[in-house]
Amino acid sequence: MSIKKKTYRSGPYQEYFAQGTQVGNVLYLSGQIGIDQDGKTPTGIADQTKVTYMNVKDVLSQFGADMGNIVDETFFVSDMDEFFGNIEDVYGAREVAYGGNPEVCQTLVQVVALAQPELKIEIKCIAHL
Amino acid sequence: MSIKKKTYRSGPYQEYFAQGTQVGNVLYLSGQIGIDQDGKTPTGIADQTKVTYMNVKDVLSQFGADMGNIVDETFFVSDMDEFFGNIEDVYGAREVAYGGNPEVCQTLVQVVALAQPELKIEIKCIAHL
Amino acid sequence: MSIKKKTYRSGPYQEYFAQGTQVGNVLYLSGQIGIDQDGKTPTGIADQTKVTYMNVKDVLSQFGADMGNIVDETFFVSDMDEFFGNIEDVYGAREVAYGGNPEVCQTLVQVVALAQPELKIEIKCIAHL
Repeated sequence: MSIKKKTYRSGPYQEYFAQGTQVGNVLYLSGQIGIDQDGKTPTGIADQTKVTYMNVKDVLSQFGADMGNIVDETFFVSDMDEFFGNIEDVYGAREVAYGGNPEVCQTLVQVVALAQPELKIEIKCIAHL
Repeated sequence: MSIKKKTYRSGPYQEYFAQGTQVGNVLYLSGQIGIDQDGKTPTGIADQTKVTYMNVKDVLSQFGADMGNIVDETFFVSDMDEFFGNIEDVYGAREVAYGGNPEVCQTLVQVVALAQPELKIEIKCIAHL
Repeated sequence: MSIKKKTYRSGPYQEYFAQGTQVGNVLYLSGQIGIDQDGKTPTGIADQTKVTYMNVKDVLSQFGADMGNIVDETFFVSDMDEFFGNIEDVYGAREVAYGGNPEVCQTLVQVVALAQPELKIEIKCIAHL
């Protein structure tokens, strides 16, 4: 059964999967992480959150969307204590990215590992257009 | 690109995210946990499951929906052995919440930690209206 | 609020949840694992990936869909080092399943445990019809 998809590929694994896949008015995003355009990852979780949302915005922009289009977030963190110990800075970076407190759902879990050892947060978003 | 969302906010983190976000006929729910209206968390995983579904129902009701609207569940548990050791009680509590065996998908993983140390299960649902 | 769902149930937990649930043109799949029709699980992560996608295909086929309908994947793995140490074989098995490099999003996290100790990967997909 054929469906019409639009995808955006970027980064070292673009051969294997897309960063964003749109079908109809739903836009799925791959989990985004705190590696910037130059391949650098800041140390702290709040700084990683900032870079992560820059990457989210980059994906959204390829589909003519912005942060207001996000409806659901899943936060995968590597250390829950570190997350809550820096929660004001993490949510501060998020608030800047959204331009205010967003109208989205959120789920938060601590996993064993993300794709690279230095990563402290990965954010998976679903957007609607 | 502007979309029309309806959200329901509740609990200590309502400034940061919504418990439910509806766009079109899709309703995303934040991962729900076993903390009741009085801030209390029962000890056992089956009792936590019961409270969790009470919270799911509360979110659904804000959108004129009920358990029959859920189409997909992800179970994040803190101890897989405890989950399977109490599976009859856990699914019993779930069956009561749904009023029977539900027509939903389910994904089950053990994570390192949920948002609070005493939590044993978090259930993230997607519903359609 | 009543919605029209179509479900496909299979396997030992079919009383509790469906392997696929369709509502409108969205098809949610339960996380699929590397247990084959005879109840056997291969040892290696690449072989488990192969069996997992056979199970994904089985679910899709019940809804008249195929791998081209998948838009989003979440990989839950039990050992990130093992995943990356076998990444060519894992993605090789995936490429065979898709018949090429797919137009899908992907999120990858290591969890503590999947539903059975011998499982190394679980793949949760969302498809659109």
